[in-house]
Amino acid sequence: MDTRSAADLSIDDVRAAARRLNGIAHRTPVLTSATLDARAGGRIFLKCENFQRMGAFKFRGAYNRLVQLNEAQRRGGVVAFSSGNHAQGVALAAKLLGIPAAIIMPEDAPKSKIAATEGYGAEVILYDRYRSHREEIAQGLCDERGAIMVPPFNDREIIAGAGTAALELLEEVPDLDNVLTPVGGGGLLSGSCLAAHGTNPAIAMYGVEPEAGNDAQQSLQKGEIVHIGVPRTIADGLQTQAPGSLTFPIMREHVREIVTVRDDELKDAMRFAFERMKLVMEPSGAASLAAVLSGKIPVSGKRTGIVISGGNVDLERFTSLLAS
Amino acid sequence: MDTRSAADLSIDDVRAAARRLNGIAHRTPVLTSATLDARAGGRIFLKCENFQRMGAFKFRGAYNRLVQLNEAQRRGGVVAFSSGNHAQGVALAAKLLGIPAAIIMPEDAPKSKIAATEGYGAEVILYDRYRSHREEIAQGLCDERGAIMVPPFNDREIIAGAGTAALELLEEVPDLDNVLTPVGGGGLLSGSCLAAHGTNPAIAMYGVEPEAGNDAQQSLQKGEIVHIGVPRTIADGLQTQAPGSLTFPIMREHVREIVTVRDDELKDAMRFAFERMKLVMEPSGAASLAAVLSGKIPVSGKRTGIVISGGNVDLERFTSLLAS
Repeated sequence: MDTRSAADLSIDDVRAAARRLNGIAHRTPVLTSATLDARAGGRIFLKCENFQRMGAFKFRGAYNRLVQLNEAQRRGGVVAFSSGNHAQGVALAAKLLGIPAAIIMPEDAPKSKIAATEGYGAEVILYDRYRSHREEIAQGLCDERGAIMVPPFNDREIIAGAGTAALELLEEVPDLDNVLTPVGGGGLLSGSCLAAHGTNPAIAMYGVEPEAGNDAQQSLQKGEIVHIGVPRTIADGLQTQAPGSLTFPIMREHVREIVTVRDDELKDAMRFAFERMKLVMEPSGAASLAAVLSGKIPVSGKRTGIVISGGNVDLERFTSLLAS
Repeated sequence: MDTRSAADLSIDDVRAAARRLNGIAHRTPVLTSATLDARAGGRIFLKCENFQRMGAFKFRGAYNRLVQLNEAQRRGGVVAFSSGNHAQGVALAAKLLGIPAAIIMPEDAPKSKIAATEGYGAEVILYDRYRSHREEIAQGLCDERGAIMVPPFNDREIIAGAGTAALELLEEVPDLDNVLTPVGGGGLLSGSCLAAHGTNPAIAMYGVEPEAGNDAQQSLQKGEIVHIGVPRTIADGLQTQAPGSLTFPIMREHVREIVTVRDDELKDAMRFAFERMKLVMEPSGAASLAAVLSGKIPVSGKRTGIVISGGNVDLERFTSLLAS
């Protein structure tokens, strides 16, 4: 576990991550829609990390972490716990780097995510998310195997890697008023804060959480990390119970506001993305769009960049979510 | 009706169209997928015209045609007949240019396409595609109103405009061995031929038709335009009965082969695009991908550009097609 504070993390760390990811991660497209702009009353720029390798931004942080392991560390392998996309990100990064990976996943994770993780050659270990503590299972494996634990968000290199998506967005569209990302543990949002405020401190940074799992919103309001029960939401990538010791202080320093969206707003956004933009977004990945479409963020007359964090949802789940 | 031959059409016409479309049409992204490359055994580059304005490449040709009308012609308005995307393309181009538009559409066209066409402010006139001749209805309206008919493919400016997608693809990925597009009336394929062979005559040009509607394949094999009955296929954008007098000679000169795909192969491609690439493709739009995935084109070890022609399919139709 990295014991340094978050205070010295900066856009330089994000830029260093971007150099490591150059030619490895996809430079994902920034898409726009006249229909969306008309509905929002402002210009919206979608940074489409659903097109990232393994289907979500998580590859960026995982690779940035794993590529910095030395030879001895690589031989011991890596262990990760994840509700889905972090698992695939670590599995793919490990595969590309020739590192053995064991992934601890909740047994109710989407089948497509479990299958994809196994497809990348990782060993998958399932657990009951309402009964067991994944951290303890992961730690046990590390002790037993001499492996290194790769946390999903509370890690300097994971945060810096996640920030590279916003860095690319701002390189392509420099004059943004707002930047908006989903918030699980806060890795994506805090990394985006470093990238955006390292470029232009005037950008208003927003986070979006599921209404049922507003641990980051509560934490920022209270000024300290608040723990909640396992959120029950369709946004399976945002079911965190608390922001991290590294991500929280960064969010506290940089974030203007955390807003929440209901599951039905996530579904509406998924349908809009499908029909009007031809984009497949998983529920968590649609959080930023849902916040814009439901008017939770002041975007009128502004230029707003939103990170679409992932698209890993199989067709059957997508269909059943949008039919209900 | 343009009575000039196709013989003098060249990449210069496509480049002129590209200048007219600059800043008006989206420069759509070219996407890749490691999973797709592994399955194809070669590098595949998807030119994503499903992200084009109104959701398909058709906007390019329609705008290129309409922007060249003079003031008197614009006042008379335009008339178009279309199974869907050409309708929306003409409607949107007309709206942007302030030209009245009447669109003749088959009454069994997808509802989303009818609604979208009306949404762009066009007057929609429905007809029975198995009983009436849309050309006659359109001609009647032109005579009555003094409007100009905008044909869906057999027009020099429509062809040149359609070719701008392949022009952009080759600007971004110059060293392609193959270029592959769907074939309805042949506007997209013939325009792509002009763009590709005007850049590099060694590129192998392929077209993809639905098996049930292989009028272009039959025509090229016979060396003359062959008319067929209305094809019954899920690819509602490719239900043409014959290639055009302008598109056929261009295809005859430039195309290596027309291959066909079955409806189930189109569905498999739509699912692959959804789950593995996070892309929504309509059945016609998935034709090129279906040809690659089903092994109809020799792509192994090659670099192949494929045009994804459109993504206009509503969620209910998409779901019911892929459930069956």
